[in-house]
Amino acid sequence: MAAMIRVEQAWFDVLAEAGVAPAAADLTGLVGDGDVVAVAAGAEGAGNPVAPLVRLIRDRLRSRGDSRAADWLHRGLTSQDVLDTALMLCLRDVLGRLAAELGRHVEELVRLAAEHRGSLRAARTLTQHAVPTTFGLTAATWLESILDARSAVTRVRASLPVQAGGAAGTLAAATELASGAGSADAPSTARGLTTRLASRLDLTDSPPWHTRRTPVTRAAAALVTCTDAWGVIAGDVLVAARPEIGELAEPSGDGRGGSSTMPGKRNPVLSTLVRTAALRAPHLLAMTHVAAAEAVDDRPAGPWHAEWPTVQELARTALVAGSQVTELLSGLHVHIERMAATAEAAAGTLTAERGSLPGASASGTDVREYLGAVNLLIDEALTRADAALGPEREGTG
Amino acid sequence: MAAMIRVEQAWFDVLAEAGVAPAAADLTGLVGDGDVVAVAAGAEGAGNPVAPLVRLIRDRLRSRGDSRAADWLHRGLTSQDVLDTALMLCLRDVLGRLAAELGRHVEELVRLAAEHRGSLRAARTLTQHAVPTTFGLTAATWLESILDARSAVTRVRASLPVQAGGAAGTLAAATELASGAGSADAPSTARGLTTRLASRLDLTDSPPWHTRRTPVTRAAAALVTCTDAWGVIAGDVLVAARPEIGELAEPSGDGRGGSSTMPGKRNPVLSTLVRTAALRAPHLLAMTHVAAAEAVDDRPAGPWHAEWPTVQELARTALVAGSQVTELLSGLHVHIERMAATAEAAAGTLTAERGSLPGASASGTDVREYLGAVNLLIDEALTRADAALGPEREGTG
Amino acid sequence: MAAMIRVEQAWFDVLAEAGVAPAAADLTGLVGDGDVVAVAAGAEGAGNPVAPLVRLIRDRLRSRGDSRAADWLHRGLTSQDVLDTALMLCLRDVLGRLAAELGRHVEELVRLAAEHRGSLRAARTLTQHAVPTTFGLTAATWLESILDARSAVTRVRASLPVQAGGAAGTLAAATELASGAGSADAPSTARGLTTRLASRLDLTDSPPWHTRRTPVTRAAAALVTCTDAWGVIAGDVLVAARPEIGELAEPSGDGRGGSSTMPGKRNPVLSTLVRTAALRAPHLLAMTHVAAAEAVDDRPAGPWHAEWPTVQELARTALVAGSQVTELLSGLHVHIERMAATAEAAAGTLTAERGSLPGASASGTDVREYLGAVNLLIDEALTRADAALGPEREGTG
Amino acid sequence: MAAMIRVEQAWFDVLAEAGVAPAAADLTGLVGDGDVVAVAAGAEGAGNPVAPLVRLIRDRLRSRGDSRAADWLHRGLTSQDVLDTALMLCLRDVLGRLAAELGRHVEELVRLAAEHRGSLRAARTLTQHAVPTTFGLTAATWLESILDARSAVTRVRASLPVQAGGAAGTLAAATELASGAGSADAPSTARGLTTRLASRLDLTDSPPWHTRRTPVTRAAAALVTCTDAWGVIAGDVLVAARPEIGELAEPSGDGRGGSSTMPGKRNPVLSTLVRTAALRAPHLLAMTHVAAAEAVDDRPAGPWHAEWPTVQELARTALVAGSQVTELLSGLHVHIERMAATAEAAAGTLTAERGSLPGASASGTDVREYLGAVNLLIDEALTRADAALGPEREGTG
Repeated sequence: MAAMIRVEQAWFDVLAEAGVAPAAADLTGLVGDGDVVAVAAGAEGAGNPVAPLVRLIRDRLRSRGDSRAADWLHRGLTSQDVLDTALMLCLRDVLGRLAAELGRHVEELVRLAAEHRGSLRAARTLTQHAVPTTFGLTAATWLESILDARSAVTRVRASLPVQAGGAAGTLAAATELASGAGSADAPSTARGLTTRLASRLDLTDSPPWHTRRTPVTRAAAALVTCTDAWGVIAGDVLVAARPEIGELAEPSGDGRGGSSTMPGKRNPVLSTLVRTAALRAPHLLAMTHVAAAEAVDDRPAGPWHAEWPTVQELARTALVAGSQVTELLSGLHVHIERMAATAEAAAGTLTAERGSLPGASASGTDVREYLGAVNLLIDEALTRADAALGPEREGTG
Repeated sequence: MAAMIRVEQAWFDVLAEAGVAPAAADLTGLVGDGDVVAVAAGAEGAGNPVAPLVRLIRDRLRSRGDSRAADWLHRGLTSQDVLDTALMLCLRDVLGRLAAELGRHVEELVRLAAEHRGSLRAARTLTQHAVPTTFGLTAATWLESILDARSAVTRVRASLPVQAGGAAGTLAAATELASGAGSADAPSTARGLTTRLASRLDLTDSPPWHTRRTPVTRAAAALVTCTDAWGVIAGDVLVAARPEIGELAEPSGDGRGGSSTMPGKRNPVLSTLVRTAALRAPHLLAMTHVAAAEAVDDRPAGPWHAEWPTVQELARTALVAGSQVTELLSGLHVHIERMAATAEAAAGTLTAERGSLPGASASGTDVREYLGAVNLLIDEALTRADAALGPEREGTG
Repeated sequence: MAAMIRVEQAWFDVLAEAGVAPAAADLTGLVGDGDVVAVAAGAEGAGNPVAPLVRLIRDRLRSRGDSRAADWLHRGLTSQDVLDTALMLCLRDVLGRLAAELGRHVEELVRLAAEHRGSLRAARTLTQHAVPTTFGLTAATWLESILDARSAVTRVRASLPVQAGGAAGTLAAATELASGAGSADAPSTARGLTTRLASRLDLTDSPPWHTRRTPVTRAAAALVTCTDAWGVIAGDVLVAARPEIGELAEPSGDGRGGSSTMPGKRNPVLSTLVRTAALRAPHLLAMTHVAAAEAVDDRPAGPWHAEWPTVQELARTALVAGSQVTELLSGLHVHIERMAATAEAAAGTLTAERGSLPGASASGTDVREYLGAVNLLIDEALTRADAALGPEREGTG
Repeated sequence: MAAMIRVEQAWFDVLAEAGVAPAAADLTGLVGDGDVVAVAAGAEGAGNPVAPLVRLIRDRLRSRGDSRAADWLHRGLTSQDVLDTALMLCLRDVLGRLAAELGRHVEELVRLAAEHRGSLRAARTLTQHAVPTTFGLTAATWLESILDARSAVTRVRASLPVQAGGAAGTLAAATELASGAGSADAPSTARGLTTRLASRLDLTDSPPWHTRRTPVTRAAAALVTCTDAWGVIAGDVLVAARPEIGELAEPSGDGRGGSSTMPGKRNPVLSTLVRTAALRAPHLLAMTHVAAAEAVDDRPAGPWHAEWPTVQELARTALVAGSQVTELLSGLHVHIERMAATAEAAAGTLTAERGSLPGASASGTDVREYLGAVNLLIDEALTRADAALGPEREGTG
C-alpha cells in the first residue's frame, strides 16, 4: 500500500511540476496501517485496491479541507497504472536486495572455490562415480550459476518500466488536463508526464504496457533464475550430506535442523527449504506467462489480477531462500578428508576413461593426475566473478 | 541426428586442427535416415542417443578400414556435450527462423498501425467500453510486444554456448589427449579445443554448463515470450471476430475455418490455433525450470533428460504458431465502419471520464476529440520498429 | 496451529485410552495466538513448526508442574504425522465448506436452468454463432460441472486419512511404548493407536503415507475441479457481459465493479476474480504432483515442505472463489429479450445446418423449431441435481 | 485416425439401427495410412482433422457410387463429438494397458515385499539416518502407491463417456433427423442415439460435455497418479544405487546404461528415464486444467485444441515409463548384506529415539529389536494387493 501511495504522490507532484495541476498536496500520514483492512475489503468489491484507496485519500483530503487536492488526486491514471507502477517499485526493492544477497553468495563461492581448488573429490554423473574433480570446481560451477542469476537480476532491475496510460492506454485524461492547462501540444505534454514520473520514481520510461506483460514475465524469470541456481546448490548439499557420502554438512547451531522425536539427529534444513523454494518457483513463473498470453482487450479481466499474488509469492519465496543460501554457504562444512578418501578408494573407476584413450601418454590410476583443466576452469570462474563484482567494489572504495 | 553428427565432425576437426588427434575423418554419408530407428532403439538402452550413434559411426568407420578414425571419434566428449551442443545448433536455427518470422510480423504491424492510425474504435477494459482509441494503437501495442519478443530471441540467439566438458566437466580426457600430443600446457590446449569448437560451430565459448542450465531456460523463455505476444494478438482477434462485435475477421480462402457440420460457418481457426500454442507453452517453460533446479551432481539423472522433448515441443509449437501469425496478420480484415459505428454509438460511455475531470477545457461527447496521445504513441512504436529493423535493412540493401 | 494442537491432544488421549501412556493432560489454553510468532520463528530453524510447538507445550506443561505429561506428549509421532494429520483436518473443514458452497451453486443453477428452459439464445462455437439453444441449457451445463466438482469434493472429503507412522513410518516408538505398557502384541497395539486416532478425529484409517502423497494430490485435484467449473461460468459471464452481447450482467450494488477513473462504468468484478482463481489453481496442483513424484527416502527433504504453502493457497483461493460464485449466480441478471433478439436476427446462420440435412422433414429458419433435445437435456441435469442433493434434503427435513 | 473412423462407423450404425438413417455403409478400407498426410494438412486449415477426414470419406463413398451413404455420414455429429469420443477410445486402450502394467508392478512388489520382509535397512528421513526399517516395508510402501494408481486408473477407465451433442450440444441435427424419420418423440430418439453409441463403443452414456472437461482432466490426473508413484520408486532407486550407498542396482544386460566415454560405467538408466517422465507429467496435467477452466461458449476456441497434444504426450509418456518400471522392478538387484551392514554400523543413531522414550521397556541399540510394526504393515499392504488383484485372478482362473 505504501508503494501505491508513493505512486499517487509522485504523479500528483508530476502534474503540478508540469503545470497541469495546481500545487500538489502532501499525502503523508493521510492513510496508515489501520486502513489496510478497509482498503482490502473495498478491493474485493472493486476488483483491485486502488479504487477504495483513492476514495479514502480523497475523503481524508476533504476532511482536512483540501477539496481541490481531492479533485486532482489520481487524475489521468487508472487503477492498473498505480498497481503496475507500485509492483515495479516493489520489484526494484526486491531485486536490489536479491542482487546484494547474490553478491554475498558470490563472495562465499569465490572463497570456497579458491580454498578448495585442490580438494579432491569424485565427480558423479547420473549418480555414479565418473572421473576425479575437486570441490573447488563444484563451487566454481555454482558460482557461474549465481553470476548468471545476478546478471539477470541486475539487468531486469535496470529496465523496470513506469506504467501511466490512463483508462485504456491512450493518455486521454492526461491529454485533456494538459490541454485544459493551456498546453500547445497536449499529447506531448501528457506523454511527458509519464517520462517525468519514471524519472521521479527512478524507473525507466515506457509507453503503456497494460496488455504487454513482458516487464512482469521478465522479472519473474529473473527470480526463478535465482531459485534455479540455489536449487542446484541445495540439491548438491542434500546429496553430499547423506551419511554414506558425508562430504558436506550444513552449518550447525541455533536450533537448526532438530528433529521432534529423534535426539541428536541433524536435518539439512536450510538445503531442504531452499530446494522447496526451487521446486515451487517454476509453477509461479508459468502462471505469469499464462496471464501474459491471455491479456486481451485494452486491459484484461483476470489475467492481470492473477499476477499480483503470484509475483508477490515468488518475490517472498526468493528473498527467504536467498538469505537461507547465504547462511548455508557461509557456514558450510567441507569434509575434505572424506572426499579424498572416497575418490581414492574409487580410483580404478575414476580413471577407467583415461586408460581407454588412444595414444594416451600415461594410463596410471592416480586420481590426482587426471584432474584435467580443473584449475583453469576455477580461475575462469574467479575471473568472471571479479569482473562482475569489481566495478562495484571500486565504486564503494 | 544431423546436428549430433555435425558436432562429432566439428570436434574431430578441432582435435586435428589443434594437433591433438591425427587427421580427422570425413563422417559424411556414414549414417543416414535409415539408421534413425536403430539409434533410437539404442537410445532407450543407453538413456540417450549419443552412445549408440557413436558406436554405429565407429563400426562404419572400421568397416571402411579407418580404424584409427574410429578410435579417435568422440574422444574427449561425453554424451551430454554432443546433445547439448546439438540442441544449441537446433535452437540457433529455430531462433533464426523465428526472428525472421517476427520480422514479418513487425512489417505487417507497422503497416496496420500506420494504416489504421485514425480508425476509431472503442477501447475495452475488463470487457467493458472504456474510452475511445484507434485500431492503429491496438496494432502498435501488439507491435511493441513483438519487438520485445524479437529482442529476446535475437539476444538469446547470439549467446547460445557450446558445450564440451568431457565426462564430468573437467576436460580430463581432452587434457590427457593434449598432453599425449606433446602440449606444454595441456589444460590450456584442452580448454582451447572448446573455444575452437565454438568458433567452428558459430556458438559462443563457455566453460562446461552440464548442471548450469541457464542457456536452456533462457532459450525457452525467449520462445514463450513469442507465444505470449502472439497469444494476445490471437485473443484480441477472437474477441473482435465475434459476430456481435465484428471488428476483425481472419483471412478467408484455402479451406480455412470450415465446419464439419455447419455450411457457411467460418471459424477463426488461425487465432484458435495460435491461442492454443500460447496456452500450452508456459507449462513447457516451467518444466525446463524444474529440470534446471534439480540438476544436481556433475551431470544429473533425469532433469537433463526432461529437457529434450520439452524444448523440442516448445520449438515446434513456436515455429508453427509463428507462421500462423504471419498468415493471420497479412490477411486480417479490419472492419473500420463497424468499429466506428460501435464507438460512436457508445459515445456517452466512452467520454464519461472526460466530463468528470477537474478544470477540463471541454466536456463534449465527441469521441474523436478524446483520443489523447494515440497518434504520438503509434509514432513511438513505429520509431522503435524502425530502429529495430533498420540496421538489417541497410545491411541487405 | 489449532489443528496441530488438536492432533497432539487426540494422540495423547489415544495413548491414554489404549493404556500405553498414563492419563492424558489437557492441552487447552497452553498455547495461544500470542505464541504464533515464536513458533513460526522456530519453524524456520527446524524446517517445520512441530518441533518448536512441541517444545513450547512441554515447557508450559512443566511450568505448571506436569512434567510427566511433558514427557509423554507427542511420543510415538514425528513432525510429519502431526502436520499431515493437521492438514487433513484443515482440508476436511475446507472441503466441507466447499461442498456447502457447491450445494448453493447447485440450487441457483437448478433455478436458472428451470426458469430459463425456454430462454432462446444463440449458441457460440469457436466464438461464432452455431445453432439455437436456450440459456436454460447453458445453466444446465454449468450445473453438470458443478455436480462433478461436488462429487469429487465429497468423495475426497470422505477418504482423508490420518497420518501416524512415527519417525520413518515403522511405528517403532509406538510399538516400544506399547511393549513397555505390557502389550502382548505390541505392533498390533501400536497400529491400533492410528486406528483410534482416525476414529477420534473422524478421518479414515491408513497405514503411514509419508512418501505416498495421493491424499494430498487427490485433495488438490478436487479443489481444481471446483475452480475449473467456476472458471467456465466466469468466462461465459465475461463474454456475455460484453456490451455488444449484453446477455448477462453481474449483480450490481454494494460498490462492486466501480472504476477508479471512469464514472458509471461497471466492471464484471466477480467473474474477473473467479477467473483469476481458475487461471492460478492448475499451477498449484502441478506443484503438488512434482512434490509427490519426488517424495523419496522414508520422508523427503523438500517436496513435502513444498506442499504446505501450496495446498494452503489453493484452499484459500477456492474458498474465496466459491463464495464469489454464489454471489454471482444468486444475483445474475439474465437479459432474455437481448438473447432472443440476437438469436432471431441470426436465424439464417443458426439454422443453416438444418437445411443441409438429408431427408430433413423441414428446413425452415424458425430458430425455435431447431432446439433439438434442449428440454430433455435440461431435465437430465435437473434430475441429476435432485439425486445429488436429495438425500441430504431428506436428512435435514 | 483409426479411432475417428471407428466413431463415424459406430454412429452410422447407430443411426441405421435406430431407423433414423437408411442402412449404414461399411467404411472399412476407405481411408488408409496413405491418407494421413492429406488429412493432417487439411486439419491445419480446418483447425481439426475431422472436417477433412469426413470430406475424404464422402469423396471415396461417392467414388464407389454410394452417394446416399456419403450424404448420411457424420450427420448429427460435430467435429468435437468425433474427436472427444475417439480420445476416450484411445484413453480406454491406454488405461487398459496401464492397468495391466500396474498389475505387473503389483506382482513384482508383492514378491519384493514378501521376500525382503526382514531385510534390515536404515530408514532415511530428510536424507539422514532415522530408525531401522526393512526393504520389505519400502517395497510395501511403493506397492500402496501403485495400488492407489491402479485404483485411479481402473475407476477412470470405467467412466469414460461418449460424446455426441452435435454442433453445440443440443442434439439439434439428430433430433431433426429423428423427426424426419417419423419418430414420435424425436428428442428422446436423438438422445437415445448417444446411449446406443456409448453401448456400441463400450463407453458410458453422458449428456454432451463439450465445455465440461472433467472426463479429460480426470483421465490426465489418473495418468499422473501413475507417474507420481513411479517417480518415487525411480527416485528411491537412484538414491540407493549411488556407489556410497549401494543397496539397490538396476537390472543389467542388453546394453542398458552404457556410457559413451567411460568403459564399465553402468548408469541407472531406467530410473533416470522414469524420473524424467515423472518430472514432466505434472505440467501436462496443469495444461489440461487451464484448458478446462477456459472452456467458454458452447465449444471453445483454443482450450479444447490444447488438450489433444497434451493428453497424447501424457499417455505416451506414461506407457513408456510403465514398461520401464516393469523392467526395473523385475530385475532389481537388492544388496541385503550392504543394507544390513549400513544399518548395523549406524545402530547408535538408529536407536537413539528408543532410548529417549519415557517408560521404555528396553533401551538397547540392537536395530533388529526396534523394527516396530514393520511386519504388520507389510501384511497390510499384501492383503490390500490381494484384494485388488484377487477378483481378476479368480476371473482368469
